[in-house]
Amino acid sequence: MKITDSVSFDDRAPIVLTMGDPAGIGPEIIVKACMQAPHLTKNCLIAGDVACIRRAAASLAVDRPQWPVAVVESPSQFQRLPPRCLPVIQVTDKLPVPELGKVSADAGRMAAQSVLWAAQAALTGEALAIVTAPLNKEALSASRLEDAMYPGHTEMLQAQSACHLGRAMSEVPVRMMLANNELRTVLVSIHLSLREAIEAVTFDAVLETLRITDQALRHSLGRAPRMAVAGLNPHAGEGGLFGREELDIIGPAIRAARSQGMNASGPYSPDTIFMRARQTPGMSSEFDVVVAMYHDQGLIPVKYLGVEQGVNVTLGLPLVRTSPDHGTAFDIAGKGVADPSSLLAAIRMAKAMIGKPADN
Amino acid sequence: MKITDSVSFDDRAPIVLTMGDPAGIGPEIIVKACMQAPHLTKNCLIAGDVACIRRAAASLAVDRPQWPVAVVESPSQFQRLPPRCLPVIQVTDKLPVPELGKVSADAGRMAAQSVLWAAQAALTGEALAIVTAPLNKEALSASRLEDAMYPGHTEMLQAQSACHLGRAMSEVPVRMMLANNELRTVLVSIHLSLREAIEAVTFDAVLETLRITDQALRHSLGRAPRMAVAGLNPHAGEGGLFGREELDIIGPAIRAARSQGMNASGPYSPDTIFMRARQTPGMSSEFDVVVAMYHDQGLIPVKYLGVEQGVNVTLGLPLVRTSPDHGTAFDIAGKGVADPSSLLAAIRMAKAMIGKPADN
Repeated sequence: MKITDSVSFDDRAPIVLTMGDPAGIGPEIIVKACMQAPHLTKNCLIAGDVACIRRAAASLAVDRPQWPVAVVESPSQFQRLPPRCLPVIQVTDKLPVPELGKVSADAGRMAAQSVLWAAQAALTGEALAIVTAPLNKEALSASRLEDAMYPGHTEMLQAQSACHLGRAMSEVPVRMMLANNELRTVLVSIHLSLREAIEAVTFDAVLETLRITDQALRHSLGRAPRMAVAGLNPHAGEGGLFGREELDIIGPAIRAARSQGMNASGPYSPDTIFMRARQTPGMSSEFDVVVAMYHDQGLIPVKYLGVEQGVNVTLGLPLVRTSPDHGTAFDIAGKGVADPSSLLAAIRMAKAMIGKPADN
Repeated sequence: MKITDSVSFDDRAPIVLTMGDPAGIGPEIIVKACMQAPHLTKNCLIAGDVACIRRAAASLAVDRPQWPVAVVESPSQFQRLPPRCLPVIQVTDKLPVPELGKVSADAGRMAAQSVLWAAQAALTGEALAIVTAPLNKEALSASRLEDAMYPGHTEMLQAQSACHLGRAMSEVPVRMMLANNELRTVLVSIHLSLREAIEAVTFDAVLETLRITDQALRHSLGRAPRMAVAGLNPHAGEGGLFGREELDIIGPAIRAARSQGMNASGPYSPDTIFMRARQTPGMSSEFDVVVAMYHDQGLIPVKYLGVEQGVNVTLGLPLVRTSPDHGTAFDIAGKGVADPSSLLAAIRMAKAMIGKPADN
């Protein structure tokens, strides 16, 4: 994954980091990320609750000086801050700082308000991208905030985007991309049983996945992405011997995508296409991304080398959104042991995805 | 994968390498394996056609001295051979040496005769294990040998074993294990469409897979293998939200296996269990093997780091059989570029699988 680290973002809008559920590890990994990678995070603005971020900063100041929180009033203001501070914008209600490791309505409310504010900032151009720390779905539901009554981040952002665009939510289809340093994969479906996932492999769904992937990665790469499409069945069906979806659905969708100017090929045998698409220092790949037919087909290879570097990217929204590939980890919240690697990778990925300004 | 390289096999029966289809890369990778790894291969005996092996040896003698073929008459005789030679036992009809890269009945016949002889040697204790070079299914079918009228190696060996045991083929159920240096996985089913593979996930099939895996790896490890069982659905169904196979089928099969004394656990989320089961130099795993519910679930992670080190092992037979994880590669046969890495890994794996003498 090539990251254009040399581009200066300083004169542009910030990348907003949402705090996540403050009872989880979100505030802690954000503070760690800022302290460990000041160059990478210098154009990042934390959207959340000042007191929650202060608690995280204080808890980490055991063997090194605490970084102060710099309270900013607007995204444009944070550019004039000195280094070695944590720029936070108070976007949540000022509620009591929630107990660590516990599901609560207050924590869910603060997490949701961070996301909703960040979404608006990104949709109106005040933010270049948003990187979301994890939230807890139960707390989200308990918050009773009308705009947060969704299963998670993705649907909340889809609803905000649809409203912004004046469309129905169904008219803002999204796809999940999971990526690490060597592999990107976009999934046709995610949280369905394997039986239902097979039914979800339709001509329209595959073509839509290709369209969304093509559009999102064009911004990032500055050219049409080379998309490898995995088959559904072993050996991609081996000419119809082990299933016909490749012949009847996936192949025709690939041809339709090509006729629309996309660089798509396949269907390839699922057991080897991810290996072929790996990009390692000594080995460049012929593909930029693999379109996977179901959740585990794509996630098994991306996670195989470890989840620390995994990043989620929501494609299809009129904004750039990435997130670390882990949850709130209530069990270790506040213990100082949470690893910010995936968050840092998500910030890097957000920068890579910004590319040139989106035109949709 | 710990290989007991220090065990001396010299005073025991040989490991038989079957020549594979002589129009493919089998003879070439066998000769290369012997020359590149004389210590590893010194207890290996090549079963096939002397003239075919001589051709391969001659074609590789461009920039280094040719190793002579030592024709042996019986498995016991090969122990007294000098080093730096290729011990071959003529077990096929003496047919004209087949043209490289072409499907032919003669080549299929020679390939089949090598396998059938090796199977008998292993079943009668004259061989410790067999390592099979790839054959061509079309050539096998064209050979018209009655004992070779099967889709491939596995079924041929199953038939030979059933006959030896006085059982029906269906009473010698087998499973495929794919392994490399860091991961072993055993598959509940292989060449079925994904739809059919879901139907093949039954209580009996999962329990049988666990039984076969447990029995085979007990020999290799000298203790009960720690078997991780993958779920079928994303997040292993998340408590029934995305499919019920984990609750209704896989979980009960695991509990039945445990009640029979096996060390099985799960079902685990498929997207992370393979990562958790990796064994790397700096990272030991809590599991010895992952039982995968379908072909691509297991093969995607095993192949992700490259196919060169992948080894196939057929579990459930009353003999040890391993094979490289590639085909005959007719397109490069005779060009001197075939890579013996997977064959060498298969020989190492055969040694590891032998462990102590099988008791079934």
